[in-house]
Amino acid sequence: MTEFDAIQRFFRWPTPTASLGPGDDCALWEVPAGQQLAISSDMLVSGRHFFADTDPEGLGHKALAVNLSDLAAMGARPQAFTLALALPELNTDWLAAFSRGMRRLAEAHHCALIGGDTTAGPLNISITVLGHVPQGQALRRDGAQVGDDIYVSGSIGDARLALQHALQPPLSPWSDADQAYLRQRLERPSPRVDLGLALRGVATAAMDLSDGLAGDLPHLLKASACGAQVDLEALPLSTVLRQLPAPEAWTLAASGGDDYELLFTAPAHQRAAVAALGRQLDVPLTRIGHITSTPGLHWQSASGLQATSPLQGFDHFA
Amino acid sequence: MTEFDAIQRFFRWPTPTASLGPGDDCALWEVPAGQQLAISSDMLVSGRHFFADTDPEGLGHKALAVNLSDLAAMGARPQAFTLALALPELNTDWLAAFSRGMRRLAEAHHCALIGGDTTAGPLNISITVLGHVPQGQALRRDGAQVGDDIYVSGSIGDARLALQHALQPPLSPWSDADQAYLRQRLERPSPRVDLGLALRGVATAAMDLSDGLAGDLPHLLKASACGAQVDLEALPLSTVLRQLPAPEAWTLAASGGDDYELLFTAPAHQRAAVAALGRQLDVPLTRIGHITSTPGLHWQSASGLQATSPLQGFDHFA
Repeated sequence: MTEFDAIQRFFRWPTPTASLGPGDDCALWEVPAGQQLAISSDMLVSGRHFFADTDPEGLGHKALAVNLSDLAAMGARPQAFTLALALPELNTDWLAAFSRGMRRLAEAHHCALIGGDTTAGPLNISITVLGHVPQGQALRRDGAQVGDDIYVSGSIGDARLALQHALQPPLSPWSDADQAYLRQRLERPSPRVDLGLALRGVATAAMDLSDGLAGDLPHLLKASACGAQVDLEALPLSTVLRQLPAPEAWTLAASGGDDYELLFTAPAHQRAAVAALGRQLDVPLTRIGHITSTPGLHWQSASGLQATSPLQGFDHFA
Repeated sequence: MTEFDAIQRFFRWPTPTASLGPGDDCALWEVPAGQQLAISSDMLVSGRHFFADTDPEGLGHKALAVNLSDLAAMGARPQAFTLALALPELNTDWLAAFSRGMRRLAEAHHCALIGGDTTAGPLNISITVLGHVPQGQALRRDGAQVGDDIYVSGSIGDARLALQHALQPPLSPWSDADQAYLRQRLERPSPRVDLGLALRGVATAAMDLSDGLAGDLPHLLKASACGAQVDLEALPLSTVLRQLPAPEAWTLAASGGDDYELLFTAPAHQRAAVAALGRQLDVPLTRIGHITSTPGLHWQSASGLQATSPLQGFDHFA
C-alpha cells in the first residue's frame, strides 16, 4: 500500500460541511458572518505524550480530544481539523484502529477532517482544529477579575495517577475497576465542548488543564494581571484519588496534567448560573478558590498542611 | 531555558492582523465577508524531508515555503499560520536561526504566526497555513478542460539534482556557482504566491509541484477526469540541468520533486494573458502540453526518445 492509498483508505470520510475537503492543495472553508475562527494546533509525540505500544484506537481519540479541548476552553464550536501524521511504517491494522478512534470522536462533534499530510518518520500526530465562536464571545485567558470565583470541571489528578500506575504497576494497589477508570481518564479524555459553549457569557476567563493546575493557572493569572488563592481541600478528587493520603492526592490534583478539564473564572453573582449549567450538563463544577489582586498563585489548606514544592506544571524539556 | 521560555523568545512576534495571537488556548481570526478560508497542513521530518544537519535558517524558510506554496496553488493570499515543532533538544543557536529564516519569509508575505505547540521529540516541523480567496475563485485541481494548455512555472528538476548531488557529491562535476544555485533551489524554494493570485480567473486548474510532475499531474488529471499529453522537450530546464544528457535531464524534470513550482491549465484563448502575467511577474511560464480526453498521462518526444519507467512521483513509503 502506498502513502496515497493509505490516506484514501483511512483518512477520507464525507465532509459535507466543507466547501472543499481533502484532495486539493488546500481545503476551503466558510466562516459565517458574525463568527470568528478559533484555531489551535497540538502535536503528540511517541514516547513523550503516549507509550509507543498505546492502543491505537485510544490514541486516535486522544489526539483529537486534546485539540477539541482547546476549542472548548475558548467557547468555540468544533468545525473541522487537519491531521499531519508521521508513521514509522504503514501498518494497516494500526491505521484502521487509529482512524476509527479519531473518526468516532470527530463525528460525535460534527468536526470534519478536511486535509492533512502523511509521511514516514518517528510516530508524530499533529492536528490543527478550527472552531467558530460568535464575535467577541470567546472565553479568553485575560478576562479574570479580582474577586471572581475559580472553578474546575470534573476531577483532576486522575490522568497523572494513571501515568504513575502505568510506569510503576507493582507499587499500586488499585482494583481492576479503579485501574480501568484511571486508564480511561488518561487514554480517552472527554473534551468539555458543551461546557465551553455553555460558559459563554458566564465565565470571565477560561483555559483547559493540559499541563496541570499549578502549571496552567499561572498563565491565566499572568494574562489577567492578577493572582489567585486556591484551597487544596476544595480540589475535586475522584473516588480513586480520594483513597490516597491527602497531601499525595493534592499534589497529583495540583500538578498532574493531561486531564483536559476546564479551568474558569466567573463573578460571584454567577454562582447560581454556574451551578445550574453544571446540573444541566451533568458535569461537576467545583469552586476551588478566588482571584486576588496580589500577584501569584497561593495555595491554602484549612488543615495547615502545605504542599508547595511539587506543585509545578509539566515542562516538556525539564 | 524552559519550553515556555523558548516559545516566548523565538516564536512570538507582533501579529497585528490577528484578533488574538498566540498565548491563549486558541488564536482568533476574522475571515472577511466574501472570502473563503484556504487551509493546508504540511509536516517535515528530519532524515526524510531534510538532512539532520541542514542549515536551520534555510529549514525555517523551507518549512513555511512549502506550506505557502499550497496557498499559491489555490490562488489564496497567505494570512496566518500555526507551527507545531518537536525538538530533540533546546538548542538556542539552532532555534534562533530557524526562527529567523521562518520569520523573514512570513513577514515578506504578511503571514502572521498565530499559534502552535512545542515539544521534545525527534525533529518534526508541522505547519498549518491559512489564506483568503474570494468566494468561488480558488484554483482547484478539478477544473481542467479538454484542449486546455498545460503550463509549468520556473524550471523543474533542480531540487532533485541538488539532492542527488548532496547524496553523491563525488559523481557530480558542477561548478561552485552551479552548486550554489542547486542548493538554493533545494533549500530555499520561493513559493509562487504572486503567480497564484494572478492566475485567478485565468487558470482553469492548478497545483504545486512537490512530488514531481509525473507524480503530481495525475492527481490533477484524475480530479478533472481527463488525460494529458506532455512534451518532454518542452519541460523548462535550468542552465544547470541543460548540461546533462537530455534523457537524464528529462527524468529529473519529470520525476524530481521539491521544486514548488506551479502546474496549471488554461484555455488556449488565454495564451496572451498567461504570457503577459509571466512578463509582469518576471516568472517563466512554459507550455508543456495539453489536456486530452484520453485518460492517463502520455509523454511524447519529437526526437523519439522515451523516458517512461522512472517517471513516477516520490512516494514517502516506497
